[in-house]
Amino acid sequence: MSNSVKGIITLVTHFGTEDSYIGAMKGVILSLNPEVNIVDISHQIPPQDIMAGAFVLSQSAPFFPKGTIHIAVVDPEVGGKRKPVLIETARYFFVGPDNGIFSLALQREKIKQKIHLTNKHYFLGNISSTFHGRDIFSPVGAYLSQGIDPALFGKRIQSIKNLEVKKPLVRNGKIAGQIIHVDRFGNLITNIDEGLLKKVFKNKSFEIIVGNSNIKKFVRSYSYAKEDVPIGLIGSSGLLEIAIRDKNASIELEIKRGDIIVAANNRNPKSDLSR
Amino acid sequence: MSNSVKGIITLVTHFGTEDSYIGAMKGVILSLNPEVNIVDISHQIPPQDIMAGAFVLSQSAPFFPKGTIHIAVVDPEVGGKRKPVLIETARYFFVGPDNGIFSLALQREKIKQKIHLTNKHYFLGNISSTFHGRDIFSPVGAYLSQGIDPALFGKRIQSIKNLEVKKPLVRNGKIAGQIIHVDRFGNLITNIDEGLLKKVFKNKSFEIIVGNSNIKKFVRSYSYAKEDVPIGLIGSSGLLEIAIRDKNASIELEIKRGDIIVAANNRNPKSDLSR
Amino acid sequence: MSNSVKGIITLVTHFGTEDSYIGAMKGVILSLNPEVNIVDISHQIPPQDIMAGAFVLSQSAPFFPKGTIHIAVVDPEVGGKRKPVLIETARYFFVGPDNGIFSLALQREKIKQKIHLTNKHYFLGNISSTFHGRDIFSPVGAYLSQGIDPALFGKRIQSIKNLEVKKPLVRNGKIAGQIIHVDRFGNLITNIDEGLLKKVFKNKSFEIIVGNSNIKKFVRSYSYAKEDVPIGLIGSSGLLEIAIRDKNASIELEIKRGDIIVAANNRNPKSDLSR
Repeated sequence: MSNSVKGIITLVTHFGTEDSYIGAMKGVILSLNPEVNIVDISHQIPPQDIMAGAFVLSQSAPFFPKGTIHIAVVDPEVGGKRKPVLIETARYFFVGPDNGIFSLALQREKIKQKIHLTNKHYFLGNISSTFHGRDIFSPVGAYLSQGIDPALFGKRIQSIKNLEVKKPLVRNGKIAGQIIHVDRFGNLITNIDEGLLKKVFKNKSFEIIVGNSNIKKFVRSYSYAKEDVPIGLIGSSGLLEIAIRDKNASIELEIKRGDIIVAANNRNPKSDLSR
Repeated sequence: MSNSVKGIITLVTHFGTEDSYIGAMKGVILSLNPEVNIVDISHQIPPQDIMAGAFVLSQSAPFFPKGTIHIAVVDPEVGGKRKPVLIETARYFFVGPDNGIFSLALQREKIKQKIHLTNKHYFLGNISSTFHGRDIFSPVGAYLSQGIDPALFGKRIQSIKNLEVKKPLVRNGKIAGQIIHVDRFGNLITNIDEGLLKKVFKNKSFEIIVGNSNIKKFVRSYSYAKEDVPIGLIGSSGLLEIAIRDKNASIELEIKRGDIIVAANNRNPKSDLSR
Repeated sequence: MSNSVKGIITLVTHFGTEDSYIGAMKGVILSLNPEVNIVDISHQIPPQDIMAGAFVLSQSAPFFPKGTIHIAVVDPEVGGKRKPVLIETARYFFVGPDNGIFSLALQREKIKQKIHLTNKHYFLGNISSTFHGRDIFSPVGAYLSQGIDPALFGKRIQSIKNLEVKKPLVRNGKIAGQIIHVDRFGNLITNIDEGLLKKVFKNKSFEIIVGNSNIKKFVRSYSYAKEDVPIGLIGSSGLLEIAIRDKNASIELEIKRGDIIVAANNRNPKSDLSR
């Protein structure tokens, strides 16, 4: 088995890009496998925000080729009781802390095995209590990229931690959902997907209530919106999004992650899904 | 023809690094060509700011080797009427929306052909209305890196959109220009190049008027400036720049992009170009 | 000698990611060596902050494989009197301005030779006065990655500039140190290392005084801390750190880089090092 083979390791972390943390991780990986392609997905996950990391990972991981190793480190309990884990799926390997960060991404994958990382042979020599991204997850990812059998890294476990992800509620022809992500543009991404909207409202029109706003305009893309008018659309993740053309909807509407959103029937003919 | 070949794809986008967007683009590219080298130029173009994207692309693209594929996505009209395009030049390929983002970079290149991207064979299977960076531009860039003939991606077109780039005006021995970029350091980059200054002022001294400031000191580099004294210099792009040593000139002088700058004769012997 | 060989070039700069600067550097490098692996460590060093660049480089460089070329550019005196230099150590090459940016990293390395970069054959054709990152350091790094003999780049010099790094003072059983870095999380990293704490306090307990805070709790990792209680711990760099669980200690305690920190005996049994 070659020690230096091609392969892809992606990184989703909360380490930012102003410190030495991601440099150290990359150095550890390349010391073990100089041929591997390290791909930065994001290091700007807000500190300790597992949900944000889980969302970003789930929306980008599935686009990578089979065999990709996804390392994700948002790790408030580092050095504490949470386990370091490796999850092998039909397409990928996921490496990081067992705190729910993989739960959204794993919804789309077929899990083959879950491993509690215990074999120190595949860790750095000195393991700090505060930086398992460098000392455990990076070397494990690098060894995986060399083709080491996942079973050698530790013991199989039956379950891993899941984030409690709220699903939208449907009652009396209304859907009550949540804002699950606010992106760089200030677009408000909800947990209501296109399929649910079609199922509940068929081709009838509906309106969206979020905060103090009542949104009746539903469009195909941002550029079809009028200035300053909040709109609903199906975003690139297949989820209902609220946006304002060329503006930050989160700031303008004073809406943040976790806020409730309701979709309900109305009689506005412009807000149906038959685009 | 191999499906997996070396090559370079650069990315200039307004997607930021806190979301899943650039991860998704990179995943799409690597799924089609795992060997390609993806180079981040910038993902921090201000949202929807085509001019800023055009400037950053034009100042970095020409340093890349022949054959490089430059994908640029600042795309306020995504999903609307603007065309997705590919421009082949003597040295490069440019892929992105037809909204002027390539106009500054193309001033230096010899255009061979312009293609309206219409062949869905080279797009992702499901094309969203809001994220052509992932669904059109990334796969087209990846297929190009495999050596696919540009002509296969769509129809030749005669013209593409150009940003209206203001050129400096010369009258009565004065040059009236504009601030076209403010960089991270707060340096104010103008549209007045060294050649024009030399042509108008020869080796005579001149002064610069911008906002409430009258700048008479002209130096070779930041380190020759005195503290707190605004200076003019020829920056690394060959353009006249206003700076304050170790300070943010944009903040200190209250000048922003688009503001007018005038260069005119004076009698200060220290502000000529015979450095 | 091949012109295109594998190898690793890392980048630590103050150029940010919103401008064209790092794109230009990467383009120059890849034009000379398309096979080299360019690794972003950080481009978010605060403008002109040599100490911050030195710290980030010193904490990440040693994790890279032998032969890695580290380019570091925080360069307030660019175009002025400071020399462009190359330092070859037993493991690495360091390329950048001679302003102290390498002094922390070099403390761990065995220096083989120091070269003043003077051979213009290995620079870009036109050297600007304001961007040696692009015009000198990038091409030198790229040529080094091709295996060019370091001695060809210029003249050997005997000494390079060192940052004056304050060492902690030990007196009357107390250690007086300094905050040398504040990281993204707001953790306060000091210049007091674990070895010194063990030497001075043995297994006896001690307390830490910083600003208006008296810190008596010493833990293995952040997750062992109680909410809102500032703690001391040995961070991943082997240095004493002050942190507050899930909070920004720098903001909460109003402490910044350069502030003094004192460790002194106390009788609190929970703050010893016998974890």
